[in-house]
Amino acid sequence: MNPIELTKRQNQIIELVKKHQPITSEQIAEKLNMTRAALRPDLTVLTMAGYLEARPKVGYFYSGQPVNNILSDFIKNLKVENIKSTPVVVSEDTTVYDAIVTLFLEDVGTIYVHNKGMLTGVVSRKDFLKIAIGNTDIHKVPVGVIMTRMPNIAFVRDEDSAYDAAAKIIEHEVDSVPVVEPITCENGKAGFKITGKVSKTNITRLFYDLCNDKLGGF
Amino acid sequence: MNPIELTKRQNQIIELVKKHQPITSEQIAEKLNMTRAALRPDLTVLTMAGYLEARPKVGYFYSGQPVNNILSDFIKNLKVENIKSTPVVVSEDTTVYDAIVTLFLEDVGTIYVHNKGMLTGVVSRKDFLKIAIGNTDIHKVPVGVIMTRMPNIAFVRDEDSAYDAAAKIIEHEVDSVPVVEPITCENGKAGFKITGKVSKTNITRLFYDLCNDKLGGF
Repeated sequence: MNPIELTKRQNQIIELVKKHQPITSEQIAEKLNMTRAALRPDLTVLTMAGYLEARPKVGYFYSGQPVNNILSDFIKNLKVENIKSTPVVVSEDTTVYDAIVTLFLEDVGTIYVHNKGMLTGVVSRKDFLKIAIGNTDIHKVPVGVIMTRMPNIAFVRDEDSAYDAAAKIIEHEVDSVPVVEPITCENGKAGFKITGKVSKTNITRLFYDLCNDKLGGF
Repeated sequence: MNPIELTKRQNQIIELVKKHQPITSEQIAEKLNMTRAALRPDLTVLTMAGYLEARPKVGYFYSGQPVNNILSDFIKNLKVENIKSTPVVVSEDTTVYDAIVTLFLEDVGTIYVHNKGMLTGVVSRKDFLKIAIGNTDIHKVPVGVIMTRMPNIAFVRDEDSAYDAAAKIIEHEVDSVPVVEPITCENGKAGFKITGKVSKTNITRLFYDLCNDKLGGF
């Protein structure tokens, strides 16, 4: 499957490079019966799109990577601060029941937990479901008891890329990551303030927007 | 913010086009003191990347869309059949409790429900949580009672694009969509067989893989 529609000549060039690599632009031009100048735009496109790799003084190689560099650069340049959404945060002493109600009222999948403004935990829909089908009295137990605690929480910063956020979500198998800023608490302890979140929903929406001309603002 | 790193000359060209559009390649070449042939590769790149639009016999326009066409084409060419994962399916008479246990054992966020092999419903983690905190006896109520029923289920087909799947997920505000094939049941009724699913996790993983050279197989 060719992810990008190539012209007939661009496909000819790729076949030539596959067969004769490394091959110089002079050699390609000669085989296609063209001038080097006429060939240059196609070589530029194929190189930028990641099909070919140009090594100075050696020639062109077929890189076998139809994923183009433009795409990869583009995604790595999108910043977390441009795609993050508002986090829903409760304190550690909130009951599990009240936290679940907040989850529904705010229509989110994850709740972050703070202690004096500092990120201390995360509770997901899955955690809540697990506790809800057990014999626990969810009206009495505080979220502080069932949450995943720092330092076992993957997080990102505003200046990280959308790719970094997706990587943390996939590698840590979580639904979202909090966006944080370092702060120092009253007692002099270092910690993080929660300023946002990036969830699978944000990444899916970004993917959708990428095809929808909705990123003009970036 | 420039999503793609452009060369100094490419930025000069964009500024010229913004200021003088429509402008022909001859006019750009003259202003930059270059030959048209030397200018051509940059114009090709800028046009393919979506920065400039070329209208025959008129000249170049600034399109104001840094999202490049390559990227959009690439995403729209990825097929559902290449990114779908295995669905978890139970029958309508499965109890809510057993369905929740299946959800945890299979570690998924959504369960699909069938009747004689035909897709009839969907139950999400959110639906389960809602029922679990109520006064319902989840050991007695079957999933058929609490599920979202056809025809209120957004679905995709193998030949749809990854973009179509992301669009259905975002527009219908769901965590996943089943991948289906049309079938005819014993009683002659038309319906759909479930062959896979595409979730926010699949889209997030795809986004992650796009930057990770992991799509060589496509």
